[in-house]
Amino acid sequence: MVMKKFINNPQDLTPELLEGYTLAYSNKVKLVSGKIVMRAKPKSTDKVAIVTLGGSGHEPALSGYVGEGMLDASVVGDIFAAPGAPKILEALRLLKGHKGILLVILNHAGDVMNGNMAFEMAVKEGINVKSVLTYDDIAPGANAPVEDRRGLGGCIPLIKVAGAAAEAGLELDEVLAVAERFGKRNATLAVTMKTATHPQSGEYISTLPDDQMEIGMGQHGEGGGTGPQAIATADETAETMAKKLAAAVGAKSGEKVMLLVNGSGATTLMEMYIVFRKAYRVLEEMGIQVVASRCEEILTVQEAGGFQMIIAVLDDELLKYYNAPADTAYWAVR
Amino acid sequence: MVMKKFINNPQDLTPELLEGYTLAYSNKVKLVSGKIVMRAKPKSTDKVAIVTLGGSGHEPALSGYVGEGMLDASVVGDIFAAPGAPKILEALRLLKGHKGILLVILNHAGDVMNGNMAFEMAVKEGINVKSVLTYDDIAPGANAPVEDRRGLGGCIPLIKVAGAAAEAGLELDEVLAVAERFGKRNATLAVTMKTATHPQSGEYISTLPDDQMEIGMGQHGEGGGTGPQAIATADETAETMAKKLAAAVGAKSGEKVMLLVNGSGATTLMEMYIVFRKAYRVLEEMGIQVVASRCEEILTVQEAGGFQMIIAVLDDELLKYYNAPADTAYWAVR
Repeated sequence: MVMKKFINNPQDLTPELLEGYTLAYSNKVKLVSGKIVMRAKPKSTDKVAIVTLGGSGHEPALSGYVGEGMLDASVVGDIFAAPGAPKILEALRLLKGHKGILLVILNHAGDVMNGNMAFEMAVKEGINVKSVLTYDDIAPGANAPVEDRRGLGGCIPLIKVAGAAAEAGLELDEVLAVAERFGKRNATLAVTMKTATHPQSGEYISTLPDDQMEIGMGQHGEGGGTGPQAIATADETAETMAKKLAAAVGAKSGEKVMLLVNGSGATTLMEMYIVFRKAYRVLEEMGIQVVASRCEEILTVQEAGGFQMIIAVLDDELLKYYNAPADTAYWAVR
Repeated sequence: MVMKKFINNPQDLTPELLEGYTLAYSNKVKLVSGKIVMRAKPKSTDKVAIVTLGGSGHEPALSGYVGEGMLDASVVGDIFAAPGAPKILEALRLLKGHKGILLVILNHAGDVMNGNMAFEMAVKEGINVKSVLTYDDIAPGANAPVEDRRGLGGCIPLIKVAGAAAEAGLELDEVLAVAERFGKRNATLAVTMKTATHPQSGEYISTLPDDQMEIGMGQHGEGGGTGPQAIATADETAETMAKKLAAAVGAKSGEKVMLLVNGSGATTLMEMYIVFRKAYRVLEEMGIQVVASRCEEILTVQEAGGFQMIIAVLDDELLKYYNAPADTAYWAVR
């Protein structure tokens, strides 16, 4: 069967998408050395640089967040594949004139292996770099070992607050501390209703019966532990997920939280609003105040139907950084 | 078969989605009288107000663009249905303290009927209102009568430039002239690969064979005139569409254009970038310079696979308004 996607040769997906993205947003980003997306016109190097890495196929993540107030660079891999360590090292070398570099690594085997390798080589070269791992997925349980918790869409608000801290002039250790504090207070849970196809092979990346959905399925179709279940209403799904997330981050009455609903691809904004509404009301009933929110496609899984709900407990400093100005293609704050 | 959507009672879709949207973006918008989305904190009434109307199910359009620099209000109908004239009139009354109101009506039968009825009643009441019709679809041919050309996603950049003109303090006739000038230079062409389901009935809004796509299909599954064709590559599709659009707006070598790729729902940003890239190169070969661009979901058709390409010829004033600051949930310019 012909693949129902607007593509050319499947082997050219990554270079073609990067060419298109950097042409469409040339006022914000530029493509360097084939697979490094950097700010088009960096204002200053007198700040900590924030860098991340990851496979393609999850657009707008991660390169859609390169720009003032968020990332200084994103190192891009092929579809669902980490970039190699040499390319990541190249990005770190390009940014070594900054007053330090924070490397954000999402917890997936390939990202961790290549990210850590590049990190160690950079340290040996005397580059002032620290790294932070994101492990926001609570599908295996909030108390599961960090290595079992995947890095999902919660990396993007972490990059938002770390990026704002860097822009505010904080030193590398301070920016790292902000990122780590946010990471400990941040949790994501995904739900999938329709699985996606791999854009190179056209094959489904996992299977899900017609009348079933799965809470906890990862962003490459990995199982969520609890297995498929009958399709629930939006309100039932939102309530289950919001309660699990609130418990995972230990949100208590009187506290302020961020609540994001991140669409996986085919799930409409309409559905995301309906889910958001119920999650907001569930938190409200618990005395928890939503002070920061977004509903949109932040980190996608091709044309999958589903969403990720992301909740983080915010203190005043984290809220300040969340609300600070940003100017990227897909996250702008005036 | 169970519908694979995150919804509750299908009859509650519109009120629930509006509740969720206005909660998630309460710093930018508020819900008034059930179905009118207005700016949360209007800074001034000493400006022309921009209002539009339309059915739900196309999110983020139209209410996602209420905020500084764009819309003052959006009057919302049920799924794929225009709001009634009384509700539109209510919105016009709420805004009559402004120094004039521009009512933007997309060319669809229900929108035109109800919009015109409300417009006439408002004029009779002495409200200072003008209206502008958007008819950007070139599927029936760029020279087809205006009544045959539907209002597609091109309404959103029209609202962007008109909104900026209003914010700049222009008088109602001047804002109308800006909107009309943009409208005459603006054209949209849609392509559909996978049709969407109606979120209330679960039924496909049109049919398309597994190996076919259709250029020109409208945003409610209406036929495009030329009928289905075999699936083409992204580059072939982009080239066909960009050339038709450039011809429709009469873009010539040396001129500056806006190029938007608006995803219909399930089509990924990856695909949109690949298409954008080719359209950009096609225009470049014609000597036409792309000076304004976006790739994102601006006006969707549920989980349809496809996109709309939008091209407008910009003069210096229109480019200035396109680039002017805006602060809405889904279109922010610093």
